[in-house]
Amino acid sequence: MSEQPLIYLDNAATSFPKPDSVYAAMDDYNRNIGAPVGRGAYRKSIELQSSIDQCRKQAAKLLGAARPEEIAFTFNGTDSLNTIIHGVLKPGDHVITSDVEHNSVLRPLQTLKNRWGLKITIIPADQTGLVEPTAFRDALQKNTRLVILNHASNVTGTIQPVNEVGEIARQADVLFLVDAAQTAGHLPLDVSSMPVDFLACPGHKGLLGPLGTGLVYLRAELADQVESLRQGGTGTRSEDETQPVTLPEKLESGNHNAPGLIGLRASIEYVLKQGVSTLRKHEQQLTAQLLDGFQQLNSFQLTGPQVVENRVGVVSLISETAEPQVLASILDENFGIQIRAGLHCAPRIHACIGSKAAGGTLRFSPGPFTTVEQIDTTISAMQDLAASF
Amino acid sequence: MSEQPLIYLDNAATSFPKPDSVYAAMDDYNRNIGAPVGRGAYRKSIELQSSIDQCRKQAAKLLGAARPEEIAFTFNGTDSLNTIIHGVLKPGDHVITSDVEHNSVLRPLQTLKNRWGLKITIIPADQTGLVEPTAFRDALQKNTRLVILNHASNVTGTIQPVNEVGEIARQADVLFLVDAAQTAGHLPLDVSSMPVDFLACPGHKGLLGPLGTGLVYLRAELADQVESLRQGGTGTRSEDETQPVTLPEKLESGNHNAPGLIGLRASIEYVLKQGVSTLRKHEQQLTAQLLDGFQQLNSFQLTGPQVVENRVGVVSLISETAEPQVLASILDENFGIQIRAGLHCAPRIHACIGSKAAGGTLRFSPGPFTTVEQIDTTISAMQDLAASF
Repeated sequence: MSEQPLIYLDNAATSFPKPDSVYAAMDDYNRNIGAPVGRGAYRKSIELQSSIDQCRKQAAKLLGAARPEEIAFTFNGTDSLNTIIHGVLKPGDHVITSDVEHNSVLRPLQTLKNRWGLKITIIPADQTGLVEPTAFRDALQKNTRLVILNHASNVTGTIQPVNEVGEIARQADVLFLVDAAQTAGHLPLDVSSMPVDFLACPGHKGLLGPLGTGLVYLRAELADQVESLRQGGTGTRSEDETQPVTLPEKLESGNHNAPGLIGLRASIEYVLKQGVSTLRKHEQQLTAQLLDGFQQLNSFQLTGPQVVENRVGVVSLISETAEPQVLASILDENFGIQIRAGLHCAPRIHACIGSKAAGGTLRFSPGPFTTVEQIDTTISAMQDLAASF
Repeated sequence: MSEQPLIYLDNAATSFPKPDSVYAAMDDYNRNIGAPVGRGAYRKSIELQSSIDQCRKQAAKLLGAARPEEIAFTFNGTDSLNTIIHGVLKPGDHVITSDVEHNSVLRPLQTLKNRWGLKITIIPADQTGLVEPTAFRDALQKNTRLVILNHASNVTGTIQPVNEVGEIARQADVLFLVDAAQTAGHLPLDVSSMPVDFLACPGHKGLLGPLGTGLVYLRAELADQVESLRQGGTGTRSEDETQPVTLPEKLESGNHNAPGLIGLRASIEYVLKQGVSTLRKHEQQLTAQLLDGFQQLNSFQLTGPQVVENRVGVVSLISETAEPQVLASILDENFGIQIRAGLHCAPRIHACIGSKAAGGTLRFSPGPFTTVEQIDTTISAMQDLAASF
């Protein structure tokens, strides 16, 4: 076992640590509240409902949703994406997406293709992982119903031109879903003023909440265009055997992850208090430090945009020698540095950036609590590693 | 505010308190592990994976599944039921279910009826909330694909003859799904020796785990007959844009609720250590006490079977005078007793048991940590309340 203190650089998978207020809120809920959300007639249950309402309001504020009910709670980013993808697409539809997508987009689409013949166009990315907006316009068909674009790649950090692509979709009267898994809490977002119809994100990455939480934003007037993925008890209109049609309960069947949402409320309050632009500054500083330190590494290639303004805090290296998984193990065991290695559940982008043959990348993703010193230690460890080849 | 210590009798909604080991395990995960499940190359992530594997093994043991991979993790009981209902049923199918079902069964079925014309037969229940197995045989049609039955009612506690109904389904080569929301952790279960193909339950009721967790058991040889509800990253075969077909990952896309599953592992270990039959004895004792104490209450009617062996620890009263919600508020505010009032998301059973006109029932559901003294206090509070009319 390494004796160094651990350095966690896997924030693109899930952020760690969370603000201490998240742990405290969850433990307090567990020990002192314990009730389910919105299903009781007693005060503790009603108080809890008001905490969850507050979580929804704060999430709406952070994302720029016009109304709290435009935010539905899910259980992870994948659940959010599936809610929209399965909820919106129908036999006969065509969808446009891109090479930079995660399997949480590619696999639902592939499933619908196999089930009933969904037509899919996949827009290529360049070697920095960037898509060209006009390619989306060129791919539009009469039956195009939805465009799906990753806001920032979980492999290269590349920020995509979502506003340009959204404008193209809007002009064509096509719905637009943004996968904000790597940008919610990282970049200022204002969905009301963006040409965005749906936005999906987990609660446990940049929003700093617990695993087991997710959010989906959907423009209120589109409620009728999204069928529910799950149906069941909503704590409302119990006498009715049909699923409610009003938001957000239409999309929120079954018991909420109450400790998770209580944690998410605390974490979103932390993000709002710090301010996304302050968090972004810190992220850019550490990203620049990583890019700078990794630039001259022997036998490793940097991927993604060179300019920090064009990327989030995800830095991937291609190893020209050893397997990524092996290197990640060495970094953990010898240096106490926790990173992620491989394809990162985003298979297509590796052909674009040249990391396919290498079995993917070594991915370093700092978080709000990562320090400059930890990044120094990481760069120095990578220099040691590179020198050993 | 009442000065009495609170008495929580809403365990049929979610159990509270949980064993202390659940809170401790979650807080330890939150503060000291923090990694996602199965997606990292570092030791903490690998250790976490082994804890989650252990949770799955213990769940399989508790339910009597032949293999751990027959257990898939979901996010609540509704998610489990939807996984099987949407995963199994196809256009042209007929399904048989009953009056005692929760909206987490009725609403998905109604949705499929509206979407593509699912045919549904609903078997009536008698005034104790019991169904007659032969009615299921009589309802079989050529295209019957699935029978769904609630193992015990969340309104009356009535234990249904699932083995008899399962035998009828099996003889007819029809699949059988049991909703064990009120029985997992309450009654000894051994799915391998029962005529059960699928069993769905939450993790946060009788299994004493956290909200945000659920389980579905599916017989391994039926994997091909269940389509996935969600698709996405599974941490396996990342290079493949199609959803894995092997269990359990086929049904487990996206990040697990790691703190939730860590808590669930601790809670299932608690249940196994105590033994379901010991927990059942305690439940029967408190149920008998409630039935006995409530028998002579003025202006309240008891519902469900008279014999404790035929019911789980859910006792519902019909009020002949005041609204159930009002009475529940009085119980909370004046006596510190937390119960649930209304339809309990199970709309149909109220017509069977005679509680429809009354707006549902007052439901008392003790848990493993409820004491005889707390039940005494509750009975005495109800006597006071009844005397006030």
